[in-house]
Parts: sequence; C-alpha cells; structure tokens
Amino acid sequence: MPQKVRIALDAMGGDHGASVVVSGAALSLVRHPDTEFILFGDEAVVGPLLAAEPKLQAAARLVHTDVAIKMDEKPSQALRHGRWKSSMWLALDAVKRGEADAAVSAGNTGALMAMSKFCLRTLPGIERPAIAALWPTLRGESIVLDVGASIGADADHLVDLAVMGSAMARVLFDLERPTVGLLNIGVEEVKGLEEVREAGRILREAQPPGMEYLGFVEGTDIGKGTVDVVVTEGFAGNIALKTAEGTARQIAQYLRAAMGRTLRARLGYWLARQAFETLREKMDPRKANGGIFLGLNGIVIKSHGGTDAEGFAAAIDLGYDFARYELLAKITRSLSQYKLGSADVVAMGGVNP
Amino acid sequence: MPQKVRIALDAMGGDHGASVVVSGAALSLVRHPDTEFILFGDEAVVGPLLAAEPKLQAAARLVHTDVAIKMDEKPSQALRHGRWKSSMWLALDAVKRGEADAAVSAGNTGALMAMSKFCLRTLPGIERPAIAALWPTLRGESIVLDVGASIGADADHLVDLAVMGSAMARVLFDLERPTVGLLNIGVEEVKGLEEVREAGRILREAQPPGMEYLGFVEGTDIGKGTVDVVVTEGFAGNIALKTAEGTARQIAQYLRAAMGRTLRARLGYWLARQAFETLREKMDPRKANGGIFLGLNGIVIKSHGGTDAEGFAAAIDLGYDFARYELLAKITRSLSQYKLGSADVVAMGGVNP
Repeated sequence: MPQKVRIALDAMGGDHGASVVVSGAALSLVRHPDTEFILFGDEAVVGPLLAAEPKLQAAARLVHTDVAIKMDEKPSQALRHGRWKSSMWLALDAVKRGEADAAVSAGNTGALMAMSKFCLRTLPGIERPAIAALWPTLRGESIVLDVGASIGADADHLVDLAVMGSAMARVLFDLERPTVGLLNIGVEEVKGLEEVREAGRILREAQPPGMEYLGFVEGTDIGKGTVDVVVTEGFAGNIALKTAEGTARQIAQYLRAAMGRTLRARLGYWLARQAFETLREKMDPRKANGGIFLGLNGIVIKSHGGTDAEGFAAAIDLGYDFARYELLAKITRSLSQYKLGSADVVAMGGVNP
Repeated sequence: MPQKVRIALDAMGGDHGASVVVSGAALSLVRHPDTEFILFGDEAVVGPLLAAEPKLQAAARLVHTDVAIKMDEKPSQALRHGRWKSSMWLALDAVKRGEADAAVSAGNTGALMAMSKFCLRTLPGIERPAIAALWPTLRGESIVLDVGASIGADADHLVDLAVMGSAMARVLFDLERPTVGLLNIGVEEVKGLEEVREAGRILREAQPPGMEYLGFVEGTDIGKGTVDVVVTEGFAGNIALKTAEGTARQIAQYLRAAMGRTLRARLGYWLARQAFETLREKMDPRKANGGIFLGLNGIVIKSHGGTDAEGFAAAIDLGYDFARYELLAKITRSLSQYKLGSADVVAMGGVNP
C-alpha cells in the first residue's frame, strides 16, 4: 500500500449531502493526517465547501459529476441511470482502478450495494456480499453481520459470514482467534432455523482456523458482548440493529423526561452532568457509524444517511483503518484458506465421516 | 363468565419454582380480589408456601401432582412424560374442562406451547398459535407478535397474526381500530421478504375490519410506538425482543457505572433519585412480563422463567384481564369475520380482479 491512505468519497450521498461529507472529511483528516481524498460530486456545490476547509483542500482532489443517486431510488433504477457517471459509481470505480484504497458513501444502501457488486465484483467463492456493523457492548465492541445486505441465508452463506467476520475481528480488535456465535432463538442445539443449525454443525466440525466457534447466541447476548462476532442472516440482523437503535433512543428520551421533571432532579442532573456526558458518549450512535461491505474486491463503507459530520468522520475513520491494516488482503487469505480447507475435506470424503 | 375469574397455575414452572408462583399469586390477588386460583404442583412443596399466605389460601385450591416439566426438557420429551399428569398439563387441562378461565406458567416455553396445542387445540382456521408480547413504547404500549412460537411464516399466517393481534389490541387498549404494521427491513414497498410483501398486499386490499393497516415498519419503529400492533414472523420477532431487552440492560449498566464514578455524580444521583426511580419503573421488564399464547381454544400466559414474584403477578394480571374482558371470544369473532370475509372475496373471484 502506498504511504498515504487514499479515500474516495461520494460527496453527494446522504440526507444532508455535500456539507456533511466535506465537514466529516475535514474532521477525519485531523485524526489521520496521512489521508488523501478524492471527492466526486457537483463542483458548484462541493467546490465552495472545500474552499472553506483549506487543510482538507490541500489533501483533496475534486472530480466533477452532475449525476447523483437519490436516496429513494430503487437499486435497479440507480444502476440504470447512475452507472459510469454518478458520484457513487465514480467513488467505487476509483477503488476498482486502484486510485483509492476505500470508498465511503452516505447514499442509498440498496443502490450502493448493487453498484458495489457490479463495479467491484465479489471475492472468489463469495456469492453475496454482507454488511457488517460494529456494535458497542458491555465488553467493548462486537461485529454483527449481515445487517441487511441480503435476505435469507443458507448454511454455506452463514459459514462465509463467520469466516469474513472473524477475519475482520482479527484486524480490527487485534485478536488471534475471535469468538464467533450464530444468532438463534434458543441456545439449545435443537432450536431454531434449519440453516442456522446446519451452519452450526459445519462450524463445529470444520473448526475453521482463526476463530473460536462458541455455538448459538440470543438477542440478549449481543449487547453483553458474549462473542466477538455475531453471525446472522440479513433480515433478522437488520431488525436486531434497528430495534437496538430504537431502544437506545427510547431510553434516552425517558431519561431526559425524568431528569427535567422536578427542580431537584434538574439539580441532580446538573451535578452529575459529567456522568451523563460519559453515558451520552457511550450511547452515541455516531461513534459506531458505518456499515462495512464485506465480500467485495475493495473496501466500501456505508455511512448512515441521516448522520452529521462527526458520524461521517467515524465512517471515514473505519475506511482508513481497514485500508491501513489491509483488511481486504486478510479476509481474502482467510477465505481462501477456509475454502481450500473445506475442499481438502471434501476430497477426503466430506466432513461427516 | 362466572362472577369470579378463575386462574389455573402451574405451580412448579420457572427457574425458582413454587415460591415465586405462590408469592406472585398473593400479590395479584390484592389487586384483583375477585380471583380464584387452582394451583397444580407438589403438595409437600406448595402446601406450606400456601399456608403462609392465608388470604391466598382462602381463594385457592391445591391439586397435587408429583410430575413437573423441567426447564430444559425438549417439547417432545415433555409431552411424552408429562401429558395427563404434569403440573403444566393439568393447568392447561383445567382451562379445557372449563374449570379455569386462564392458565399461567413460568415453565419451559417449547413444552408449554406443545402441550397447549395438544390439549387446547387451535382456533378454527388457525394452524399455528403465536406468542404475543406487550412492548413498552414512547406512546404507551404496543403488541408485538409472533415473538417465538414458530419459525418462518407465509403471507396467510402473517395476516392471521395481524387479525389476532388487532383483536387483542382492541380489548387491551380499548381501541376501535388499532393501527397495524408489518415488520420489515425498509419502509419502501419494494424491499423485504416476499411473504411480508404479499401479506402487505393482502392487508391493503382486504382491509380487514377492526384494524387500520399502515404498511411496513422497521425495528426503530417498535420503541417509538408507530403502530399499536407489530406483526412479524417468530424468528425475527424473538430476536427483536431479546435484543431490546439486552440493550435496555446494557444501558442500565452504563448508567449505574457512570453514576457511581465520582462523589459529585453520586450526590447528583441522590438528588435525582426520584427521577431515576421513575425511569427504573419505565424500564422494569417485570411490568411487561407475560407472553400471551394466541390462536388456541383457551387463554394461556407464559411468564418469564427467571422472573420474581412481582413479575409473575404481572403475568397473572394479564391472564385476569384477558379472562375478564373476554379476549378469546373477541379474537374468535374477529377471525371468523375475517375468514368469512375472505371466503366471500374468494367466492367472488379472488381479491385480485
């Protein structure tokens, strides 16, 4: 990898568009001065914003396009009208052409996934990419995947998710053998979906290198941090993620209401405000912003569409880390080791003697 | 219905067994003095506990059995060894024989569901019962179903869940036309599982009476209270429920840690303790204790296995309310109206002209 980390930004994506992207890049650049940016977007919009951030401007190049993908566009529509020329496509294409080490977009998830598959293609042996999320837990952070790239998963896809997720955990959490659990609705071996049970059987028997498979976990285990990597199919994973976000917001609102109700409570709040600040930081969804697209020939980070500059900066930071620590190469190596391993096993007569 | 509400209790179910059941019944009796109890369990264990609660003893009858279902027994095992004679079975059978208006158990969920189906049978037109949960929201409470009775759901089953859930909401929340949403991973009509889309189409076109179908909702909408009834397949529903529980516990732990860190924070906490108490009550999982089994010829409430007396009392209260307000009759009526309605439509050539 070249000395600097080069990040391609879809400057037109997200609910708030270029202003959040440019301010986010400026924030991230302070934390990682060894970053170079290529911004793709409308010069008339992005240019003035960039001019207002001289340090960023010095580390950035702006490539003009007047095509932008709308937040509510269907993936097929987006591909039809935005391929080759939209800000989203051009950011991905910069990764493909080796001009950038990672692409970051706050644009429409479905369109970004469709374009990523089309532009970057999936890794050998991977049919469907996944979206991985970093989940704050009582023990630190865990990786949860898939949180919505595709609906339904057979046992082999769940095993691929376990292999990719554990490779990511090794890089990001600096662990030799991250623990892995399959999300299910009961910890007993008898319960749950047939595919989840089958994936559990494969992982137990194949013991893929570089991970420790611990069995089934339940929804309550995610926040506890019972395992480093929680593997699930995308429908249930997305619902888990959004339900946790909703619950956190709900409790924050209860807390605000309770603390404002009486003078005594307000005084108590004022005295304990430092503690509340700590709590707010712990619960800050911007810190864990960024879904990572796994299984592609390139690093793509999806920021929340509605995030602010701080949240977008967190998504860029993630892209930076992955490029700097060569996540992609490590995932590819893990996958090919695992696939090779299972091919050996198959050649020897299958994993079931 | 007779003057009194008659509740059958599986006195041996749950992680803590008879002591929680007896104390819970005593608590619930204070709130609803017009309750009569039949307790099924080991006389040597339950008898002395009951003798220590004279008021409850006066309103209760104890039926001895020395067979109890273990918390980790598989449903098929439980049926084999516990049918006709276990405390769980006898409580259900009391409902079947018309001796009780509702059964409450903190025992093993799978066994309770299997026995309920076998003993009480499903309502006409319903193939699979569901478990409904009461979910505290920013607007009050919503009903979420199915939270784990069965895995996978076709469109017709999802529509049945909507009909049963809205009947429950009419009774419990005293609403004429509760709002209903289908849990999905995007609000746009194009996204999500085929079965969820198809169920959405049926509900939009059939407009079943007594509910207002609002479309798809996401995980974040549950805690907001966007709709009165959230309909989902049991795997995703169970994961949503457990993830929300886990998130609430996680935040409570952050809060405790933050408030104990400095003297100032502790003082602030002390001043605001009334506000924290309010918050704790809002977040108290015992208040929403009790999964309601829907779709059976009888009212069955499943309490959390690990709950305490307060939580078990909440589960009994739920059984009381359902019996008192004739939930079952209302659900049966709604279902038969809906099924009749759709039969008419089919007779006229289907809902798709």
